[in-house]
Amino acid sequence: MSRIKLSHFNKQGQARMVDISQKLRTRRIAIAVGTVFMSQSTLRLIEGNQLEKGNLWEVARLAGIMAAKKTPELIPMCHPILLGNIDVDFSVLTPANKERAEVQIKASVTAAGQTGVEMEAMTAVSIAALTLYDMCKAVDKGISVGEISLTFKSGGKSGTYKRGVLP
Amino acid sequence: MSRIKLSHFNKQGQARMVDISQKLRTRRIAIAVGTVFMSQSTLRLIEGNQLEKGNLWEVARLAGIMAAKKTPELIPMCHPILLGNIDVDFSVLTPANKERAEVQIKASVTAAGQTGVEMEAMTAVSIAALTLYDMCKAVDKGISVGEISLTFKSGGKSGTYKRGVLP
Amino acid sequence: MSRIKLSHFNKQGQARMVDISQKLRTRRIAIAVGTVFMSQSTLRLIEGNQLEKGNLWEVARLAGIMAAKKTPELIPMCHPILLGNIDVDFSVLTPANKERAEVQIKASVTAAGQTGVEMEAMTAVSIAALTLYDMCKAVDKGISVGEISLTFKSGGKSGTYKRGVLP
Amino acid sequence: MSRIKLSHFNKQGQARMVDISQKLRTRRIAIAVGTVFMSQSTLRLIEGNQLEKGNLWEVARLAGIMAAKKTPELIPMCHPILLGNIDVDFSVLTPANKERAEVQIKASVTAAGQTGVEMEAMTAVSIAALTLYDMCKAVDKGISVGEISLTFKSGGKSGTYKRGVLP
Amino acid sequence: MSRIKLSHFNKQGQARMVDISQKLRTRRIAIAVGTVFMSQSTLRLIEGNQLEKGNLWEVARLAGIMAAKKTPELIPMCHPILLGNIDVDFSVLTPANKERAEVQIKASVTAAGQTGVEMEAMTAVSIAALTLYDMCKAVDKGISVGEISLTFKSGGKSGTYKRGVLP
Amino acid sequence: MSRIKLSHFNKQGQARMVDISQKLRTRRIAIAVGTVFMSQSTLRLIEGNQLEKGNLWEVARLAGIMAAKKTPELIPMCHPILLGNIDVDFSVLTPANKERAEVQIKASVTAAGQTGVEMEAMTAVSIAALTLYDMCKAVDKGISVGEISLTFKSGGKSGTYKRGVLP
Repeated sequence: MSRIKLSHFNKQGQARMVDISQKLRTRRIAIAVGTVFMSQSTLRLIEGNQLEKGNLWEVARLAGIMAAKKTPELIPMCHPILLGNIDVDFSVLTPANKERAEVQIKASVTAAGQTGVEMEAMTAVSIAALTLYDMCKAVDKGISVGEISLTFKSGGKSGTYKRGVLP
Repeated sequence: MSRIKLSHFNKQGQARMVDISQKLRTRRIAIAVGTVFMSQSTLRLIEGNQLEKGNLWEVARLAGIMAAKKTPELIPMCHPILLGNIDVDFSVLTPANKERAEVQIKASVTAAGQTGVEMEAMTAVSIAALTLYDMCKAVDKGISVGEISLTFKSGGKSGTYKRGVLP
Repeated sequence: MSRIKLSHFNKQGQARMVDISQKLRTRRIAIAVGTVFMSQSTLRLIEGNQLEKGNLWEVARLAGIMAAKKTPELIPMCHPILLGNIDVDFSVLTPANKERAEVQIKASVTAAGQTGVEMEAMTAVSIAALTLYDMCKAVDKGISVGEISLTFKSGGKSGTYKRGVLP
Repeated sequence: MSRIKLSHFNKQGQARMVDISQKLRTRRIAIAVGTVFMSQSTLRLIEGNQLEKGNLWEVARLAGIMAAKKTPELIPMCHPILLGNIDVDFSVLTPANKERAEVQIKASVTAAGQTGVEMEAMTAVSIAALTLYDMCKAVDKGISVGEISLTFKSGGKSGTYKRGVLP
Repeated sequence: MSRIKLSHFNKQGQARMVDISQKLRTRRIAIAVGTVFMSQSTLRLIEGNQLEKGNLWEVARLAGIMAAKKTPELIPMCHPILLGNIDVDFSVLTPANKERAEVQIKASVTAAGQTGVEMEAMTAVSIAALTLYDMCKAVDKGISVGEISLTFKSGGKSGTYKRGVLP
Repeated sequence: MSRIKLSHFNKQGQARMVDISQKLRTRRIAIAVGTVFMSQSTLRLIEGNQLEKGNLWEVARLAGIMAAKKTPELIPMCHPILLGNIDVDFSVLTPANKERAEVQIKASVTAAGQTGVEMEAMTAVSIAALTLYDMCKAVDKGISVGEISLTFKSGGKSGTYKRGVLP
């Protein structure tokens, strides 16, 4: 009954890349966020030394930026696209009296292309989060990565999307 | 005060790879899990056709397996390692009367090597989850990926870890 | 005597990439085919279980799609291009009474770009074929891959080509 | 009835990598061959200039060697392995009075590892062949690649295999 | 005081990719050079055999061309770009009576894009030089690579640059 | 006359990978250095802000570390190897009264393997240098990269090498 189709599958249910070669080239923006949950003591450890802190965030930021450029290698049905820019930012969300510290990661990606950059933003957040995990796992294996989601996209035929705002 | 050090940083707080070249080669196992939250209607859509379902899971599974092999390219301080095997599995967790459907992804990785395979398991889960997102995003942009965490590891000097079990 | 030149070599016979930066951006299509020859019993084995069959073809299909995106990394003189879509299909060609079973692989690639996508289609067929080989080699090392060729291309200055049709 | 299983699929028919982490590390050799069919005039063109000929073969040889190192990125279920060496050779097979010229490509690969190098040899042949195609396609789109197959392997539990010799 | 800013860093001094998605697409050219210093006897060795010489240069040339295509994977803040062509050339600079032989490497890269191709030219020179080093290091570990620099660029808002010519 | 052979070429002068599959696995160390020459004002600019400085060096350091892991993809005849660790360091060499500032880059790499890690150290230095160039080129196109060379290696049949020390 449902007429909604998953465009990544053809009539036989086989995976395929969607044809974008005749779409218009428009400006695309996508923003994704995610959270890394760690113990307060782990957060204090990485915040303890100004230089170290700079470096740890910087390593994760670069990992996210470089991973965004690898998105079409990682996500099978993603198209190559000429990215305009990639920004990855971190903010410590939680008050010190909570048991778990929360670090929010936000990635913004732009491009002028025939397809969106949602997956690039989601990939940047995910790999930045895994990199934080990697650098802290010797002291805190209980770190987890959560609620990675798209918060905004614009450009293309499907228009603008804001998380939590009904279309 | 704290004597715990982040081994990925040297005394100057600069990033470096930890030297593993003189560690013993032991059997390593790591298991990670993560969850994809989607609307019940999206889940029904992908479960509606037996063949399509097979394919969608299979695309995500392969993406996870292939991404695990790329871990040292993605996570800056990860060492190359000769992976033994990689398994990625999916289970639908939620009863149909809940508003959000939950699909759990579990990745198990083994190797005989000088370092662990935790990041390979975490990467496999993350990219499999992003691939599910990619294939469903045309019908459900509100999908989110959550609580990616390590549930088990064994092998190496630090021994066995089970999530939720105190050391 | 011959005035035909191999454009990948300069006057000194040194390899170089052909300059496409001033060519027009036009719609490009390329179709390539290839055949995997295996024993009838191997084919029966992979066709025996509906789910397994789906998966084996799906693994090979994805490998072909992902390899097409890697073409400029694999073929030294190929240019990066923004692929529009990639389709990879399989058909069992042979009647069951022939000694060798033949599985035909067909890849179609499109793009809007300054150069053709012939190599992307040829690469998709080749890697899909090697993936079938890999998954069956434990039971049939005698599998071979044959007659990989371009059957169609359109777009660009050299126009349309159909295999077997004189220009 | 059949007890032979495809080891790349688990009981549910899902793709997985075979676990090699507890296999012995033994010396592995694999040899694969393939043929490129081109017009006699194309072959004459590439053989006409001693230097050019050297270069064209050399480009294809290097492409094959570099592709062999990428095998685990290309073939989804292949394991990373520490390759010992890779040789790629070309021989012109056909007398000048035949309509189609045949160039044979042979790749030999060795390693000391826990899994075989058959796929590395097959990949080297395939990509060397596609590279020849790429460099000649401006003058001969009818070139085709044929009968890529494994001719020899040794090492590992399954022992030695020679094409055409019954086990 | 200085108003000049490093555009790869935002106001907080964090690394970011510069946004090029709204820049004009213009023709870009960049030329870079570098020098490999080796002993006269090493140079004689590689020049001794016409075929060998051809091959050694050809291996280094191809390595440079293929590395240029990987620039955005290697240089963290580089954007993907659709390269038009890449040429890599070698010249022996030094008279035979000098103690050290000098081989000059020159790489020219073109593209029609929203950003320059300086880094692609610099990368091609660097990797071609390292490849020469790799192939000769068994006989001459004292080889060094020197004075890699940009000699020319044109296209884009910042216009034309020639090394040694004041703007 | 000369009996010294370039081991990367076989008797026909064709490129090949050297067979290391029967060599012993020993501990390998390699150290390489290189210099980036820039104007004093560019150096002051990057040193002006403590945080910025940390970041710029950190971006270049990470680029070097990640590139070292890609060495077998970049240098055609390099073997894959399981790197133990990679360290990349920077020191400002020149007094402020000299016209050109000199930043020295030093990379140290270790592994337990069947072949050396000289090329990994040389690649780390080169790509770290190019990354510094990339981040400063908007303000100083005259930056050049110089005298990249191996200063130390140990391990393997050819033993220990120190630059400037006769064997």
